[in-house]
Parts: sequence; structure tokens; C-alpha cells
Amino acid sequence: MTNFTSIHDTDNPQALVQQVLELKQNSSPSTLGMGKTLGLIFFNPSLRTRLSTQKAATNLGMNVIVMNINGDAWNIEFEDGTVMNGSTQEHIKDAVQVISGYCDVMGVRTFAKLEDPQEDYQEKVLNNFIKHSSVPLVSLESATLHPLQSLTDLATITETGNSTPKVVLSWAPHPKKLPQAVANSFLQWITATDAQTTVVHPKGYELSDEFTDGVEVSHDQETALKDADFVYTKNWCSYAQYGQTPPVEKDWTINQQKMKLTNNGKFMHCLPIRRNVVATDEVIDNSLVYEQAKNREYAAQAVLQNILEEL
Amino acid sequence: MTNFTSIHDTDNPQALVQQVLELKQNSSPSTLGMGKTLGLIFFNPSLRTRLSTQKAATNLGMNVIVMNINGDAWNIEFEDGTVMNGSTQEHIKDAVQVISGYCDVMGVRTFAKLEDPQEDYQEKVLNNFIKHSSVPLVSLESATLHPLQSLTDLATITETGNSTPKVVLSWAPHPKKLPQAVANSFLQWITATDAQTTVVHPKGYELSDEFTDGVEVSHDQETALKDADFVYTKNWCSYAQYGQTPPVEKDWTINQQKMKLTNNGKFMHCLPIRRNVVATDEVIDNSLVYEQAKNREYAAQAVLQNILEEL
Amino acid sequence: MTNFTSIHDTDNPQALVQQVLELKQNSSPSTLGMGKTLGLIFFNPSLRTRLSTQKAATNLGMNVIVMNINGDAWNIEFEDGTVMNGSTQEHIKDAVQVISGYCDVMGVRTFAKLEDPQEDYQEKVLNNFIKHSSVPLVSLESATLHPLQSLTDLATITETGNSTPKVVLSWAPHPKKLPQAVANSFLQWITATDAQTTVVHPKGYELSDEFTDGVEVSHDQETALKDADFVYTKNWCSYAQYGQTPPVEKDWTINQQKMKLTNNGKFMHCLPIRRNVVATDEVIDNSLVYEQAKNREYAAQAVLQNILEEL
Repeated sequence: MTNFTSIHDTDNPQALVQQVLELKQNSSPSTLGMGKTLGLIFFNPSLRTRLSTQKAATNLGMNVIVMNINGDAWNIEFEDGTVMNGSTQEHIKDAVQVISGYCDVMGVRTFAKLEDPQEDYQEKVLNNFIKHSSVPLVSLESATLHPLQSLTDLATITETGNSTPKVVLSWAPHPKKLPQAVANSFLQWITATDAQTTVVHPKGYELSDEFTDGVEVSHDQETALKDADFVYTKNWCSYAQYGQTPPVEKDWTINQQKMKLTNNGKFMHCLPIRRNVVATDEVIDNSLVYEQAKNREYAAQAVLQNILEEL
Repeated sequence: MTNFTSIHDTDNPQALVQQVLELKQNSSPSTLGMGKTLGLIFFNPSLRTRLSTQKAATNLGMNVIVMNINGDAWNIEFEDGTVMNGSTQEHIKDAVQVISGYCDVMGVRTFAKLEDPQEDYQEKVLNNFIKHSSVPLVSLESATLHPLQSLTDLATITETGNSTPKVVLSWAPHPKKLPQAVANSFLQWITATDAQTTVVHPKGYELSDEFTDGVEVSHDQETALKDADFVYTKNWCSYAQYGQTPPVEKDWTINQQKMKLTNNGKFMHCLPIRRNVVATDEVIDNSLVYEQAKNREYAAQAVLQNILEEL
Repeated sequence: MTNFTSIHDTDNPQALVQQVLELKQNSSPSTLGMGKTLGLIFFNPSLRTRLSTQKAATNLGMNVIVMNINGDAWNIEFEDGTVMNGSTQEHIKDAVQVISGYCDVMGVRTFAKLEDPQEDYQEKVLNNFIKHSSVPLVSLESATLHPLQSLTDLATITETGNSTPKVVLSWAPHPKKLPQAVANSFLQWITATDAQTTVVHPKGYELSDEFTDGVEVSHDQETALKDADFVYTKNWCSYAQYGQTPPVEKDWTINQQKMKLTNNGKFMHCLPIRRNVVATDEVIDNSLVYEQAKNREYAAQAVLQNILEEL
């Protein structure tokens, strides 16, 4: 494995999932990463990603350097050819070439601006990192995908032993407009399995065709939830009316009553979660969310291990 | 030792003090913490605590992950049952369960809001951490106590060889209103020794009975200082008129003239200190404050060592 | 080596440059720093310095603790004798004594305020660190000098094999007013070699005599660039009219046409660089800037190694 920015960076997603679960079973310390440095670059806040990736790296014996761009460092310019006499202080191409010179592997968390779909869906920031980095790059979430989360989610589902589950990806309410990254990425990974997947969301919240091709799409939450084994919930804003949040009439919060429609289904969410908005306390308190969070560590460790082995 | 959040977490404070002083004498590196991760969570600024605890952990071979909540991560919700459609992004119960999943020991620094005495004195935030953490928890200062500081202070006093000192805890002026945590905690620990303790403060600045029971309380600073061996100085705001700072007429700043009333007494303060407000330069420059700061490292190391031994 | 704050801390700059280049050739891991702690203190943003120094320290087996003053910690008071009842919360003398108690070596990055030349050129903050630190101190840039950068720059020039180059230090435009530190420091180090050095800048931008003594000074950029082997470019504000930016008529941006005047000269800059302001994309993309950035790691490692050997 060289980079890890989407499912396309592994030729065997199921084998990678198995590797994650084996690392969880057998967490004996490794010296594979001794003397190697992982540089983690954050453009926005992070808790699980920050901590789980650091933990994974130290499990492998790596040193970790964390950098908060726009906090610890300089304002970054992303446009090529700009006359930089404004507020940006360093060009992305210079920052990435310099940072990667001090690291053996780099992780970067970028964000969707939710202004221009072209800019986000072309993964401008992530691709700048890939282009200018002299070392392998791990996406810690990008504008449109969150592969470490999705790998984690698959491992969490696989861990339950159900290999042909009915999985529902349900939109949920949220006070802020959020990117489509987690939903896109979940679909990219779950459709590579034998799961039977349905996406359910209010009209106007269709995801990009690229991710829903071949997936059943519904606008009726209660019908969709019927007999579900896993209910993966997430808010996202509109793709068609990019970055907008068209009005939603019904109540899309997941509650106990809705969960009773499922096949004793398990609730999943990537966290952080707005309690009693996305789902009720009762639902969250009887869910897989902490298992998911814990599995982030082993997902990151599997990816870093594969990258280190090919350095 | 499982948690360390007050003197009640040790059944032998004096033995713990001796352990601190022995670690200071013999600081040979330990491998006890190899492969173990300490997660440090800060809700507000910290210098001594941040650095001394990191140093203590690396002395023991531990890995350290530092997290600034409200800076690196998300805004935290503390109320149960809230509909989280406002500015808070993650519930404390989720954050703590997730973080503790990546750590073997957790340290947390919380703060008194100084609005509602019930909320602060019930240690709402700290207790949420204890309740939801799956690993041992060390208080790096809480709303009402600062046990690592107090353990340090006792070690610093014990180090001088005087086992039955006269100790004065004196209130001091400060431009901001500060919590009672350091004062409360100092009393909790010093009253477990054979020291003769007096608290002196302006009227209106009485501490909670819980901490002054059996301690001599005075409002006359000069009389109280007479023959003192140690003058522990700290500002705090009113407990009775919670969070208020009733007007003070006299000058409570500790100066050289006042120190001359003591038995060649040593000045102590937990730092940071407002020079020429809490005490004059001359007093601070001839004090135990740097010894105290240095001893924070060994206090943290003793506590972490005891916790690691019982993991 | 005890401290490293200017060229005067080494009695053989050329030998130090050779040591940097040897470390780059042979980067086998060292255990010299095992069990030793490097404390890095930043008063302002930093990318290269932060990362390269951390990397250098881990190359040597050291533990690193990073502290952002005015972010992670308290507001610092620099004046002696102040009655600290305002916004500053901890005196520099207390902060430094405390921090150095937890470290074996300390690095500090300070900044020129560009208000009072006396204050900056007397290196008030840096000297407070030196005065109050109980451990060796490495400057990560100070108000008037940037010795790790200059050591790096000399190593980068030496690496090319030209031992008697013509070197031009050229002023460049910038939307902000910047300190003279990099320019001063470069002159301090380059004049210790056999290079033939010219400084060229608009009138009004003269550097302090202390650094230009014996150096050719010109106000005609194109003439100065003629036959140059290295073009070191940097913005700085006025020293005589301290902190001002007198109007500049001509275009001082380095472009390809100007580079053609040189002896196939190499463009150098310490980064971060304002592209198409200081120099054009074309110039930067065919320059030594990434080599310089990479060499920062080995410069820091050489300095830390020399300090560790004398601990």
C-alpha cells in the first residue's frame, strides 16, 4: 500500500478488514515503525482521528508529530499562480514538500468547503498533498471521503459475524450543514461486501450518483428500517443544491420506536453525535458507537502497517 | 491506586509523600510504563501540570497524548438528556468513553465555573470523567481540589525536615476571581499531618466548612504569620457569596516586612503568581516556589507508578 | 557547546557545517539523547522549525515536549518589578525557571516586536531565557538572529561544492513588515566563510552596521546579481526608521530574467515564501528552498548532539 485515500487503494477490502480484526485480537507491540516518523496535519478539529491514529502509530513504534495548520503554523494558499500579497502566508506546495521531508508517512485531515462541488469533489486539497508529498499519504478524512472510518465500520459489522446483513444508511437531522464524506465513503465500502444496502433520506438530499449506483434509495425511513440488521446514521447537506439544507418535514431522528422496526438492528454512528437530534439517548446508549471508535485504532494500525511494510 | 482525585484515594498520604521524595533522589529510568499510553485532557491553560505530568510519564516509559478540549477538539455538552441542537458538538459521556478506549491512564484538568456552588462542589465534570472512563483517572486539578499540587506541597514541606511545623495558609489579592481548589486541597492534605495549621483571610472569604473543620481560622494576617515556619499563599473568591469578591480594606500582599514576623518562614505558592500583587519580588525570589514546581514531576510520577502497578 | 543563540556559540563554524553534512549522509539512529527531554517553547507560529527540531531530537532518541505560550499556557510578563494586576499571568523568570526544571535542553522561538530597536536588539526575551534557564538553550529564532537557519544555509551552499562563491543577499517585497533576523544572521555566518558577499536593498532598508561591516552594500539589484552563484532573498523592514516600510519604487521581485544575470545562480529562501511577491513561481520551483528546509533537520541535530555531549 502506498497511499490510503479511498477504497481504491486496497485491492482486497475484505482482507484489510480481517487484518484490522486480527490486530484487535492480538495487540502485541510491534517494532516495525521504529525510527519512522508519522506527521499528522489537521486543518480542523478532531478527537477520535487524532487520538486513534497517534495510538496506532505508537503501537507500531513510530514517532508522531502533530501539526494544526491555521493554528500552530501559517495560513495556507491553495491556488496555483497566486500573487501572495494577501492573508495567506505559505503555499500548499511548499508546505507539503517541506513537511514530507521530515516524515516517513503523512496523515492529513482536510475539509469540504461546501461552496463549490467541483472544488470539493475534485479533492483539491488532498490531491495537492498527494502531488507534492514525497512520502505515502493517509487520508484522515477528506472533502468527500473518510476511508479510515469506513474501514472501521466494515470491521465493526464483520465483527458481529453477520456476513450478509441488511444495512440501512439513514440521513438524520443536524443543526449544521455537514459534508457528504462519511456517507459517500460508507457506501463505497459497504457495496464491496455482500450486504444488502438501502440509503434513505428526505427528498433533496440525494447523494452523488457515483456513490449510490446500484444501491436502493428510499425516502421513507420507516419502511426502509424494516428488518434492518444495521442502521448507520449520519447527517449530510444537499449535493444537488450544493451545501444547502432544504426543509425537511418529517422527524428523522432515530428513536427506540423506529429501532423496533428493525431485525434487532444495531445502531451505528461515526461520532461525534448530537444526542437527541441525530438519535435519542436510549438508542445511542445501546449501540455500536464505542466499538466503532475503538476499532478506529486498529483500522489506522492496519493501514500504517501495510504502508510501513512497503517503505 | 485506581483513581487519584483527592487525598481519599490514598490510605497513607505520608507514605505517598515519602515515595515522591525517594523518586526525586533516585530518578533512574523505569520501564514500568512501556507500551502504556497516558491521555492528558485539558479544558483550560496549563504549564506546570502539562509539562510535569508529561515528564513524569516519560520517566516511566509511557507514551503521552495531549488533547486540548475546546481547541483541538469539539465543544463538549455536560448536561444529560439535552437536545444537542445548539453549540455543543459532543457529549461528555461519548468523549470520555472514546478517549479512555485509546488510553491506559487518563489525566484531566477541569475548572470551576464559579457560578453555581452546587455544580462546582459536586465536581460535575470530574465525576462525569470518572463515571464514563474505562481506565484509571488522575485529576490534574478539578473544580474544588488540586491533589497533585497538594501532594507536591507536602513533599516540599517534608523535604525541609520539619515534621511539626507551624503552617499558615494566607489569602492574597488577585485581579481576577479564582477558585478555592488549591486552598481546599492544601487544607485536606496538611491536616492529615502533624503540622499546626492556621488559615487567615479577610472576612467574607471563608472556605467551605468541609475543609476548615478543626483548623484555626483568623482574619488578622500579621498575628497569624507570627512564628510561622511556612507561609502558603493563594487567592480565592468567596464561597458564601459564591464567586464574588467582596471588598477588602487592608493590604494582604505578602512582603518582606510581614515575612520577618515568621520563624524564618518559607514562602510557598503553586504558581503562576502575580508578582507584587500576591507577594513582592523579594519574597518570591527567596521562596520555595521553584522547589514546589520541580516536585510536581515526582508527585505525578509517584501517582502514575502506583496506578501502573495495579493495572 | 552550551547555548546556541548565534555564531559566537561555536568556535569553528566550518566544522559545524561539516558535521551537519555528515549527519545528512549518515543518518543512523543515535541513543545519545535517550532519557533526555527537549522542551520547545513557541511564542509565535512555526512549521519548519517546529517539525525539523522535533525530528532532529527524535533522531537522537530524545523526548520532546512542545509548549505554545499564549495558547496552551499563560500570558507572560517580561518587565521586572511590574505590579502584575493586568493581563499578564506569569512572569518570564518564573516560567523559564519552572520549564527548564523539567527539561535537559530548551529551545525557544521569540519574535521582534518591531517597536523599539533597543528592546529587540538587546534580545530581551531571549536573554531572559538564558538568564533564568537552568539548562542549555537553543534559539529557534530570536528578535535579531536565526542561527539554525543560517547554519542550514551555509551547509546548503557548502553542499554544492563551491567554496568561494559570489553570494548576493537581496531584499524583496512583502505585504507585511518583517524583522531583520534572517538577513542579519545570514550575514553573520556567510562573512565567516570565503564567500564574496554583496547585500542589495532599496535605500532606507540599511541593516545595522554590526552586520554589514566589511560587506559590499548596493542599491542596484540588477548590477548586484551579475555573476552571482547564490541569490539569498528575504524581506526586512527598516532598521534606521525602526519597523517602518519606506516606499520602494522599483520592482524588487526576483524573476527568471533577473536570475539570468547570475552565474547560473541558485535561488535561496528560508520559507515560508510569498510566491510571486518575493520571487516568481518559476524561480522558486528551480531553487534550493527544499534542500534548505530538509537541511534544517540536520542543523538542529548537529547542535543538539554537541549540547548533549557536554551535558
